[in-house]
Amino acid sequence: MVSEASEPEELDRTGRSALRRRRDRGAYRRSVVNSILDEALVCQVAFVADGEPFVLPTAHVRVGRFLYLHGARANHMLRALAGGARACVSVTLVDGLVLARSAFHHALNYRSVVLFGTAAAVSDPGEKRLALTAMVDRLVPGRGTEVRAPTEAELRATEVVRFPIEEGSAKARSGGPVDDPEDLGHDVWAGHVPLGLVEGDPVPDAGIAAPDSLPGHPGRAAGGGRS
Amino acid sequence: MVSEASEPEELDRTGRSALRRRRDRGAYRRSVVNSILDEALVCQVAFVADGEPFVLPTAHVRVGRFLYLHGARANHMLRALAGGARACVSVTLVDGLVLARSAFHHALNYRSVVLFGTAAAVSDPGEKRLALTAMVDRLVPGRGTEVRAPTEAELRATEVVRFPIEEGSAKARSGGPVDDPEDLGHDVWAGHVPLGLVEGDPVPDAGIAAPDSLPGHPGRAAGGGRS
Repeated sequence: MVSEASEPEELDRTGRSALRRRRDRGAYRRSVVNSILDEALVCQVAFVADGEPFVLPTAHVRVGRFLYLHGARANHMLRALAGGARACVSVTLVDGLVLARSAFHHALNYRSVVLFGTAAAVSDPGEKRLALTAMVDRLVPGRGTEVRAPTEAELRATEVVRFPIEEGSAKARSGGPVDDPEDLGHDVWAGHVPLGLVEGDPVPDAGIAAPDSLPGHPGRAAGGGRS
Repeated sequence: MVSEASEPEELDRTGRSALRRRRDRGAYRRSVVNSILDEALVCQVAFVADGEPFVLPTAHVRVGRFLYLHGARANHMLRALAGGARACVSVTLVDGLVLARSAFHHALNYRSVVLFGTAAAVSDPGEKRLALTAMVDRLVPGRGTEVRAPTEAELRATEVVRFPIEEGSAKARSGGPVDDPEDLGHDVWAGHVPLGLVEGDPVPDAGIAAPDSLPGHPGRAAGGGRS
């Protein structure tokens, strides 16, 4: 595993990954890309099968310079990826509603990442275990070593693929509306409304009491807004 | 516009849209599909360009049997769609963390929709205005008629495409973990943690006071969990 310190600062900018429009909203810095990937619980994986586009949601976890995806061996998307299909991975966090004075300037606040590349099947049992433990740890930090570890049969039944975080970009919008000067007198409320994914009360499974507090994780603050 | 009453109950089930695995988690009912599309603020649009898969996030609004997408005329994805590219649209709502006693049975609760089809550019100015008003109304009900309406120049600068809600399916998971019987004695908290997108306090744009309450919208309850 390469240490963070020796990583290049930015992702590869190619004809495909360089932003075509609104370049002011884009970022290629690995730290920005990683923070978005680490906060989102699901990504969207696009691939081509028989010439047709497919996109399916799946949970992911980042370890260093890779996104790990996993699922049942029979999973259509994972089979395509493990077979070397080109893929595009999108992650989007919705941060708020932007309510302008004109219909035209309404928007959403968001942070997003789009990555391009080719995944590889993970066959090494050690790396597979590491990825699956990381997946549990990202739901609740430290939990990966508290739960019953995967058996050999479970490992065999699980497909794990590794997607490189090399070519892509991040994009974000934050803050209030940008209205045209001639609309500023229009008599309607204007501003923005933060949105955030918030945890409700844990619901214990039959017969086992809930702890006083469940460890939170940094990506999901309890306040709602993060603008 | 076709009335809801005369709509068929289910979406088209094809080789592509029929669920391959976990059929128990799937649904083709239009009412289920619509409720997920209406709650989500963004969708993910996949298409193929030069043989490569692309997927990009964008805001959407459903009107009857169509999803409307919009953006700047120069937008790469909208140009591809308006040009007749085959597309796959994915919408995902993350509803919670499922914390099992074994690593293997950890999961997310979610509701998702995947649609397949070909979009069409909306050229009729009336339909374009209707779609853009619906887009503002879905952020705050009733707001579409309160804000300054689009000018002719703004309409010309905006690409609107219409995507048919005909071929696809919904998929969902809810509730607690399903552990193997032999793991039930494992000494670790197990259950599920609801997650929901929650509004923070509205932030008024310079110089205009916020109302006491901003109209909420049905898809985003203020409680956090919706399991």
